Amino acid sequence: MNSIFWLVPVSSVLALFFAWFFFKQMMKESEGTDLMKKIAKHVRDGAMAYLRQQYKVVFKVFVIVTILFAIMAYVLKIQNPWVPFAFLTGGFFSGLAGFFGMRTATYASARTANAAQRSLNDGLRIAFRSGAVMGLVVVGLGLLDISIWFYALQYIIGALDSTTSGIIASDPSMKLIIITTTTLTFGMGASTQALFARVGGGIFTKAADVGADLVGKVEAGIPEDDPRNPATIADNVGDNVGDVAGMGADLYESYCGAILSTAALGATAFAGLGVETQMNGVIAPMIIAAVGIVLSILGIFMVSAKEGASQKQLLAALSRGVNVSSVGIALFSFLILKYLDIPNYLGVWGSMMAGLLGGIGIGKITEYYTSSGFAPTRNIAESTKTGPATVIISGIGTGMISTAIPVLIVGTSIILAFLFASSFNFENISMGLYGIAIAAVGMLSTLGITLATDAYGPIADNAGGNAEMSGLGHEVRVRTDALDTLGNTTAATGKGFAIGSAALTALALLASYIEEIKIAIARIPEKVAAFTEYASNNHFTNVDIHKASIPEMMQYLHLDLMNPRVLVGAFIGSMAAFLFCGLTMNAVGRAAQSMVEEVRRQFREIKGILSGEGEPDYARCVEISTKGAQKEMMLPSLLAIFIPIATGIIFGVSGVVGLLLGGVSTGFILAIFMANAGGAWDNAKKYIEEGNFGGKGSECHKAAVTGDTVGDPFKDTSGPSLNILIKLMSMVSIVMAGLTVAFSLM
Amino acid sequence: MNSIFWLVPVSSVLALFFAWFFFKQMMKESEGTDLMKKIAKHVRDGAMAYLRQQYKVVFKVFVIVTILFAIMAYVLKIQNPWVPFAFLTGGFFSGLAGFFGMRTATYASARTANAAQRSLNDGLRIAFRSGAVMGLVVVGLGLLDISIWFYALQYIIGALDSTTSGIIASDPSMKLIIITTTTLTFGMGASTQALFARVGGGIFTKAADVGADLVGKVEAGIPEDDPRNPATIADNVGDNVGDVAGMGADLYESYCGAILSTAALGATAFAGLGVETQMNGVIAPMIIAAVGIVLSILGIFMVSAKEGASQKQLLAALSRGVNVSSVGIALFSFLILKYLDIPNYLGVWGSMMAGLLGGIGIGKITEYYTSSGFAPTRNIAESTKTGPATVIISGIGTGMISTAIPVLIVGTSIILAFLFASSFNFENISMGLYGIAIAAVGMLSTLGITLATDAYGPIADNAGGNAEMSGLGHEVRVRTDALDTLGNTTAATGKGFAIGSAALTALALLASYIEEIKIAIARIPEKVAAFTEYASNNHFTNVDIHKASIPEMMQYLHLDLMNPRVLVGAFIGSMAAFLFCGLTMNAVGRAAQSMVEEVRRQFREIKGILSGEGEPDYARCVEISTKGAQKEMMLPSLLAIFIPIATGIIFGVSGVVGLLLGGVSTGFILAIFMANAGGAWDNAKKYIEEGNFGGKGSECHKAAVTGDTVGDPFKDTSGPSLNILIKLMSMVSIVMAGLTVAFSLM
Repeated sequence: MNSIFWLVPVSSVLALFFAWFFFKQMMKESEGTDLMKKIAKHVRDGAMAYLRQQYKVVFKVFVIVTILFAIMAYVLKIQNPWVPFAFLTGGFFSGLAGFFGMRTATYASARTANAAQRSLNDGLRIAFRSGAVMGLVVVGLGLLDISIWFYALQYIIGALDSTTSGIIASDPSMKLIIITTTTLTFGMGASTQALFARVGGGIFTKAADVGADLVGKVEAGIPEDDPRNPATIADNVGDNVGDVAGMGADLYESYCGAILSTAALGATAFAGLGVETQMNGVIAPMIIAAVGIVLSILGIFMVSAKEGASQKQLLAALSRGVNVSSVGIALFSFLILKYLDIPNYLGVWGSMMAGLLGGIGIGKITEYYTSSGFAPTRNIAESTKTGPATVIISGIGTGMISTAIPVLIVGTSIILAFLFASSFNFENISMGLYGIAIAAVGMLSTLGITLATDAYGPIADNAGGNAEMSGLGHEVRVRTDALDTLGNTTAATGKGFAIGSAALTALALLASYIEEIKIAIARIPEKVAAFTEYASNNHFTNVDIHKASIPEMMQYLHLDLMNPRVLVGAFIGSMAAFLFCGLTMNAVGRAAQSMVEEVRRQFREIKGILSGEGEPDYARCVEISTKGAQKEMMLPSLLAIFIPIATGIIFGVSGVVGLLLGGVSTGFILAIFMANAGGAWDNAKKYIEEGNFGGKGSECHKAAVTGDTVGDPFKDTSGPSLNILIKLMSMVSIVMAGLTVAFSLM
Repeated sequence: MNSIFWLVPVSSVLALFFAWFFFKQMMKESEGTDLMKKIAKHVRDGAMAYLRQQYKVVFKVFVIVTILFAIMAYVLKIQNPWVPFAFLTGGFFSGLAGFFGMRTATYASARTANAAQRSLNDGLRIAFRSGAVMGLVVVGLGLLDISIWFYALQYIIGALDSTTSGIIASDPSMKLIIITTTTLTFGMGASTQALFARVGGGIFTKAADVGADLVGKVEAGIPEDDPRNPATIADNVGDNVGDVAGMGADLYESYCGAILSTAALGATAFAGLGVETQMNGVIAPMIIAAVGIVLSILGIFMVSAKEGASQKQLLAALSRGVNVSSVGIALFSFLILKYLDIPNYLGVWGSMMAGLLGGIGIGKITEYYTSSGFAPTRNIAESTKTGPATVIISGIGTGMISTAIPVLIVGTSIILAFLFASSFNFENISMGLYGIAIAAVGMLSTLGITLATDAYGPIADNAGGNAEMSGLGHEVRVRTDALDTLGNTTAATGKGFAIGSAALTALALLASYIEEIKIAIARIPEKVAAFTEYASNNHFTNVDIHKASIPEMMQYLHLDLMNPRVLVGAFIGSMAAFLFCGLTMNAVGRAAQSMVEEVRRQFREIKGILSGEGEPDYARCVEISTKGAQKEMMLPSLLAIFIPIATGIIFGVSGVVGLLLGGVSTGFILAIFMANAGGAWDNAKKYIEEGNFGGKGSECHKAAVTGDTVGDPFKDTSGPSLNILIKLMSMVSIVMAGLTVAFSLM
């Protein structure tokens, strides 16, 4: 292995070191008054209590799935024996990333509020550096886990696996393919953890938010984050468990998924060109990610502004950090690919750029469709004049229309990434797919800093909540709101990368699935015999299953568009995305209803609550959200695991490929629709609150609040979970390939 | 040709005769008081004015498209010369069906109201027989057009078409394939007309409905169909142009599409088995449809109840008619397939049954999710307690969840239809696809009566409006409401057939597309040479493009699941469904807003309007809806034509196939989601109006009205248009195959 590989573990440790450093720095700051400390502690305790509960439930799921994997590996012998372990570490590290990020955020909010009393810049520094802790923990733990497994598997694989040890001994190229597909299993662990975190956290936060808004703002007419509202602590807890812990686990999964799938495709694409070239293709995405970490740290240090900087200067400061990292990675990735002597390195670099530019493009379009500076959101605000129904209609309409350009951008990125890497040859499928995968790596390589700009938003939001509840001056709230708004602009780009990379990674995983199927067939002698016979009858270039090309495998497996199993699979995949959204939407609706009833009960039964004399029972509301989230997250999350397994057993490999294609195309678009509709409703409401169409308290404002409330689960529960869903379904399919090949009915 | 073919034109004339007969019967009834006549005339004139305007606009589109086709056929010579003519007749007959149906409906409403003064049964008879006029006109004109073209093309094709005349002379089997694919063009004419009718009518009706509800019910607090509401006539006109004329054109297209695509697949599936067998495979769906007409007429005559029949007895009477026709077609189709000596006739009959049962299954599930007798709609009603936002969340959630079982049902139908017809052999693709196509014919063969049960709903609804406005007794309104409700139950089954058959037909058209591509390649000598070379290098069984099998064509065209053009096409197809829905949703939103402003203006400016002393300006409201609909329908409809052409030119054949797959899987599911969410909101509102959760006027009712208003464009504009969209995109692709093959960039 090229010695440059050591950059990977080293830079991941570096990321963790700087995360620790920024955390310590933040902890030195004062947390403010006793009241501020008390409120922060309430939120922190609530969040930790939730996370403990969440991890308990997820732990049980992991135990069951691991046992299942162990049976498949050791009893049925249809799977690699390292799969159970890889699965566990993926889940563990992903959970850890969420935990660290959230713990930091809950310590940072009061400190940010306190610092914002001094100046906007001080508030920015603390919030942003705390967000950076999350960003660096995610990329650090992710790359660390990848390098440990990748390094370890080189030595241990084959030792336990009787079915593959012969192949490995005789063919080092094959060994690399098996290693990279095994590490994909750890991606499944990360995806599983991420889905639970996103769904559970998303239900918690939106149940609390919707409940607090409906009774507090609409019925009782008290402002947001008012301490008289019993759901207000739960609402702040929700920001932490949903927007911080949930997002951390989510992006941990995206980051690892993109790198691992590129590595797996690299092993295949360069299989015939000598082990060294093949190895370089495998480690290229890891090295790019490692350099991305260094550039992210550099970018984070560049984010600071002069005392008394204006909002615009602060935005420039934030953008500077992100831009430096992005330009840096564009430059360095070219040097890395050249240094590693990747075949057609210029083309592969072009693929990466196609991804990077596509991500930026989606971010810009997201901003257009969701910012109140542009026509779409303004039109939604305008539609409040005719009541809530037209607000909903125009929000849904606009959200649906807003999917068009992102799809065209991603489509262009896909085609260009394929063509650049394959030297404009559609027949060169392996190289083209490698190009698509590395485009996703391009989007996510500077995640360390882009996630920081995303994660500091909820911290600023919580700081605002703390300021409101502890009665700090109005100017503090204005500053934290400014920080929050500031974050929204940069976060749009981050979201573009997250959504775009999900689509590209899902396609890359589709290709890895075919590879895994070959390995699964190779484990079963009768299947090998059947393949060999087919191959010789059909003039394949080689009758060895391990050497079959992608087009040959597609022919053998009937992966074509007239196969009814593919068609039905595609229907089921599209449906899975809708079903999943429907279940999570209804979960939020139900959990919010219990919250509304609880808040109404407290207003009714606790005397003096609205005059500020009675103390609301905050803990009860946190408990209700926690219970609701835990109960409601199970069904949708388990379905995401169950559907690909069932499809595989009933319809076989071609059904699964249809499922994944239907899932990614519909899921990707549904995710954009929900994110943009939700964002546009949110900002239309804020636009009215700025004094347009009658401002706060007007009929228009009430209609806008209805839109925003509907948009909450759109943009923070169902929408973002879809990104994970489509990848988890792919990961499950890959890991269950052995089961599908051995037991499918059709 | 088998002499039994004559059954086809004969039964279509029979259908038209009975349509005329029922129309005359209805016209003999009294239209009631002068006021009733006046109101009916208002509605009729408004509807006719709209339709004239609509046809004018559509006529221009047809002229442009026809010229385009003529250039392709006579100048570029990349297309069959009969295409322009077939396209025109399809559009003409489809428009005619809508026109006759609507004209009948507008004459029938006052007569139904008048008869309902006497008894429920009298009202049922008139409304149902008038609905039957529509049903019979649609199937009669459809089958007539099919038989004329099919018969005529046998003699005239080849005469003008220099590129195919040689083939036709030498190979009668090839001639049949070319004839059947040419008749598909007339399907495109019908689809184009249908899309404009559905979209334009849908925007008109919902703009009027939403506008009337928002200002009338919610703001002014006056009941539905109150003559003081200026939008009330427009609302009733809307029922006619949207729910009657729009639905007529829609189902005309579905009916013809299913029959034509089955015929085209029959020509391919039986190509090697002698011309007689092949011809029988082609005419089988036509004969089944012809017998379906006779059975429908029989069923229509069976719908009548004793004087003083209860609601339940009336429902039984309606169901009896539908059931007799369905059981009859199940029996007769077996005899037909056996008589025609279709190879594996038992299997093909099994495929048809899989479709028929699937359609019934979807109907039952639709009823479960949208009727207030079951939990889902009850839960939405329950969620009104926490305001409009939770009503929307739970409606969207439930609608999304409701897609799961229909997809599983259609998936099962597809797989079973394929397996039965192919004798459980996945390699026997042509027979399997024929099975899928004939399953759609099974669903639609008794359209004559199922459409009658669907179309009589709006007639009853309009009769209720007329009764309300002309101040007839309360019991008349109760009776027309009962008729309307009655129709909803049977209509659920009809909708199941419409949605299910759309998915199956779209898949069948996908297969026809491949066939058309072969013909298009055969027109261009260089393309033929390229194919021949590829075929001999790749061990094809035959180097003649006309004789290439489906799997060989898939290999040659790279129609596999790792082709980036297929993947990007699938993304674009999914996106097209969302974009189309978004555009139509926003169109309704905008048109409704102008209606709201107009009604508010009239309330403000016309003195005494609310006390009943001033006369509202009904015509102005009709005009606003008409203008809004005409303006707004252009962009979404033209996009549906443009997207497949652009995809073909940029990404080539494989991109188009991806597009169609993405479009059908996402579009089908989006259509179910929107139809069911809209239906459930509607019935949740009605459930509250029955006195639950505080009944009319309560806060819960207001929240429910918001849900219903959002649901209006869901279920009556965007949702049903999607069925047409997915088929129109397929038809356009088929007709434009020549262009794609000749000029595609990739």
